[in-house]
Amino acid sequence: MKTTKSSKITTPIITSSELLEHWQGHRRLTRKMIEIFPEKEFFNYTIGGMRTASQLIEELLSIAVPGLRQIASGKMEEQVHHIDFKGDKNRVLELWDEATADINENWAQVSDERFRDDIVTFGQYPGTVWSSIFYFIDNEIHHRGQAYVYLRSLGIEPPFFWER
Amino acid sequence: MKTTKSSKITTPIITSSELLEHWQGHRRLTRKMIEIFPEKEFFNYTIGGMRTASQLIEELLSIAVPGLRQIASGKMEEQVHHIDFKGDKNRVLELWDEATADINENWAQVSDERFRDDIVTFGQYPGTVWSSIFYFIDNEIHHRGQAYVYLRSLGIEPPFFWER
Repeated sequence: MKTTKSSKITTPIITSSELLEHWQGHRRLTRKMIEIFPEKEFFNYTIGGMRTASQLIEELLSIAVPGLRQIASGKMEEQVHHIDFKGDKNRVLELWDEATADINENWAQVSDERFRDDIVTFGQYPGTVWSSIFYFIDNEIHHRGQAYVYLRSLGIEPPFFWER
Repeated sequence: MKTTKSSKITTPIITSSELLEHWQGHRRLTRKMIEIFPEKEFFNYTIGGMRTASQLIEELLSIAVPGLRQIASGKMEEQVHHIDFKGDKNRVLELWDEATADINENWAQVSDERFRDDIVTFGQYPGTVWSSIFYFIDNEIHHRGQAYVYLRSLGIEPPFFWER
């Protein structure tokens, strides 16, 4: 059967639960990256005046749960930019795992219809719900890719990109 | 109305044409990154023994159109790893633009139902059609993020990540 690319579609190209699992797969890979990063360099090492790996992870944590909470509740959230890891990578991993559970919990409250709504994430970034979620995921892939270069330049082999 | 996360879904969370536009948006950003990269360093510069920006782009080109052609036709494609850019960035941009058109053309032949099919891309990478396409996009984001570090370490500001 030929289908037209109109707004009336009967077969979803990806389901909500598949997209969640896709994101959590990426988050498992990011977690491996954090684990493999030497603790001192995680907080101090940088290339070309960029942010440290720790600051990149801080950004990812400041976006994922608050952003998804706004999507689930419909209530504006603020992006809290600073998270104090206290120079402790175990603390980072703890917060990462808490976020994993919080993402699952909030996701379960997002109906399929909700993905097509307009939203202004953190009162600053306009888009649809789906494009906002894609932004969260893409931004994580982008920054993790950068952290991979830090690792390589430290002589450390990053985890395989395709192993989630 | 409450929906359940079963396989029977009436509202797509993202449509095929939205996913295509999302990818092409990323490809426009990657194109800007290629444009901004100094030609000599594009072919020579590397960090930590990684591939050059040119080699990363070679990989992206070797995946996108052949991968999508296999999805559209159902016939196995081979991944041609080597593309001769002849040390010419304009040649890279030309091939990039050809791929843009080829992606659109092949995409138009992929029905919504097709996204749920199983596939072994290049006879090597098993997955579904949707997960394979996501891999193509994610892999581009990953490597472009790495090229951003190269640019920063060369003292060059990369294009804004959110401008597609």
